[in-house]
Amino acid sequence: MPVNLAPLDPARLYPVAGLELGTARAAIRKPNRRDVLLARIAPGATAAGVFTRNRFCAAPVTVCREHLAAGAGIRAFVVNTGNANAGTGEPGLAAARQTCAAVAALLGCEPAQVLPFSTGVILEPLPVDRLVAGLPAARDDLRADQWGVAAEAIMTTDTLPKAASRRVTIGGRSATVTGISKGAGMIRPNMATMLGFVATDARVPQPLLAKWVREAADASFNRITIDGDTSTNDSFVLIATGAGEVAVADEADPSAAPLKAAIVAVARELAQAIVRDGEGATKFITVAVERAGTPDEAAAVAYAIAHSPLVKTAFFASDPNLGRILCAIGYAGIEDLDPSRIDLWLDDVHVATRGGRHPDYREEDGQRVMKQAEITVRVSLARGEAATTVWTCDLSHDYVSINADYRS
Amino acid sequence: MPVNLAPLDPARLYPVAGLELGTARAAIRKPNRRDVLLARIAPGATAAGVFTRNRFCAAPVTVCREHLAAGAGIRAFVVNTGNANAGTGEPGLAAARQTCAAVAALLGCEPAQVLPFSTGVILEPLPVDRLVAGLPAARDDLRADQWGVAAEAIMTTDTLPKAASRRVTIGGRSATVTGISKGAGMIRPNMATMLGFVATDARVPQPLLAKWVREAADASFNRITIDGDTSTNDSFVLIATGAGEVAVADEADPSAAPLKAAIVAVARELAQAIVRDGEGATKFITVAVERAGTPDEAAAVAYAIAHSPLVKTAFFASDPNLGRILCAIGYAGIEDLDPSRIDLWLDDVHVATRGGRHPDYREEDGQRVMKQAEITVRVSLARGEAATTVWTCDLSHDYVSINADYRS
Repeated sequence: MPVNLAPLDPARLYPVAGLELGTARAAIRKPNRRDVLLARIAPGATAAGVFTRNRFCAAPVTVCREHLAAGAGIRAFVVNTGNANAGTGEPGLAAARQTCAAVAALLGCEPAQVLPFSTGVILEPLPVDRLVAGLPAARDDLRADQWGVAAEAIMTTDTLPKAASRRVTIGGRSATVTGISKGAGMIRPNMATMLGFVATDARVPQPLLAKWVREAADASFNRITIDGDTSTNDSFVLIATGAGEVAVADEADPSAAPLKAAIVAVARELAQAIVRDGEGATKFITVAVERAGTPDEAAAVAYAIAHSPLVKTAFFASDPNLGRILCAIGYAGIEDLDPSRIDLWLDDVHVATRGGRHPDYREEDGQRVMKQAEITVRVSLARGEAATTVWTCDLSHDYVSINADYRS
Repeated sequence: MPVNLAPLDPARLYPVAGLELGTARAAIRKPNRRDVLLARIAPGATAAGVFTRNRFCAAPVTVCREHLAAGAGIRAFVVNTGNANAGTGEPGLAAARQTCAAVAALLGCEPAQVLPFSTGVILEPLPVDRLVAGLPAARDDLRADQWGVAAEAIMTTDTLPKAASRRVTIGGRSATVTGISKGAGMIRPNMATMLGFVATDARVPQPLLAKWVREAADASFNRITIDGDTSTNDSFVLIATGAGEVAVADEADPSAAPLKAAIVAVARELAQAIVRDGEGATKFITVAVERAGTPDEAAAVAYAIAHSPLVKTAFFASDPNLGRILCAIGYAGIEDLDPSRIDLWLDDVHVATRGGRHPDYREEDGQRVMKQAEITVRVSLARGEAATTVWTCDLSHDYVSINADYRS
């Protein structure tokens, strides 16, 4: 039951010149479902990525890092669902490399120009033979107008495919930014989300793209959490095909700012879509922490609130049991926090001030806001000028059901 | 549905000479339930406590710290359920002080010799008038043999009262250690648990008691977690009445070690009882991390596993989805962790080695262990000699139900 997340309208997903997508049914884990996505990218594109900081990172994440560092450019990426190829040791790395080699042979490029991604169950060997066997069908299916189908092919526990698209006019020329993402659980990205792919047809030098992918991740995927579990496979990749009308020379170029804004907007929409479709989510919660001493302090408080099972179950119940939020602020790890300076709002309702209940706060006002599908929790620490915003969802019975049944 | 936690047998709870307990029904939150516990302690006792590190600590925690620091000795403690007196600002502090003054007047001692405790809903004013009005009935009820009733009186979402008792013979003399605890949610104690009280009839100098209360907490209440939410009210108090046969002069005294062992055993049984009765718990999980580089590193890995909602739901489902444990180890924050050196066992089953699945691991062996009510997860990091053990429970539908319904 996603929160205010509409089914995809394929007509609103603009193709990105220089990039084609194809899918296949390779029976990676279960038969008869699209579980392989192949993207072919025309020569001359640039790419940059950010990846999970989980030390138990998946084999494809290691290979992606190697291939991007090699600087050979990008000609393809390939995604499988059903198996994360994580916790698979040396055989897992070999399987990821074998996949890239097979794609390269099929499309006529170098293996280092192929980026591999996997998502699904951890600690099981990747059935690389079935994956490779499915690639020719995916290649035969390549078309530019398949972003919607691609979004479907990378789903796992997602209930809806996630895609976003913008077309912007910059100096009389048109640029397109389109992206897809997946993820619904094991979501507390640290540098990137489960899987996010954003492409533009503009030309962007690789160093600038590398800067933008970090900044876009920090403003989107790195600001969401569902269950606090940083995945082994988080990957967010930004691709600039250069096949369109707009070319950005450097950050001072007048085209840079509007193009970056479109990229950030698409990344944020994709990240928020992951929260809206969070496992079992019934509420979309924005946690805004203001007047913190440092950005780290703001993030610590925001995540303490966003990860508290007690806060999340109170949202599920629409119960304004708001002391739980104060409790989470108190254990966020700020040693010299002065509770008497903290203010708390629920949307426009001033709940707490000076360490206690606001004199004008009425339970029915809190109740009114808690019943909404979208709620903003705002905290002022009165310690400085740093601020951050984190997006999360509630914790419901369905979260437990989904994760207790995931493999069965 | 507590995990292997038996109903109390009052005959197994030895009275502690010099300490009497009485309860009352004061309608703090709901009518007709025992919600006030009063303990009267004979002159000459020593006491020491450890309290929550939550910065939003409850008013009674602040008052307890003041009173223990004053060094006036202990003559009474008083506990109310139904209201945490936390997030209540200055009026909350005044209410806690008023409570101590009323107890002091009733029992003929100084207010600074009374320790107050509260547990229940946060951010609501303590109905101190009703609490004070209930005290005379609690005083009239004072008896030495009421540890079981006392354990019941301090319950909130607990499904069973929690108490433990030991009688040890030291050098031909007998010493008794009896304690009670409460807590089922908002449990990730940081220095102490929700509420724990342990008393002995031995005589122990206050400085030694202060050392023991920290060491006992570190070996018991500070090693449990249910939902990672460090409460505003965590308090663990150790009282030595000195009214029994055993007197300990200092730590070198031959009586010290066996008495301390009995205290730690009671504290650990009480702490584990909290996990066994964890909100919605169906499994009791021991997480043992070995060969860590430092104790902090061991604790970080143990808590990452114990707090992961994905690991906890897998235990609930008896699903050996053990990649989730590797994932949690990977995001525990050890920057230079080498996944290829990690080993993972589930009880006696060797699940993972060298960063991947153990060659002899069979799914049915994992399944067999996961179906048990008590499970040990053992991790070796191969980085050093530090180790720690944490106790936790699974995450079930009932956890969500209990916390979504708590105030209704």
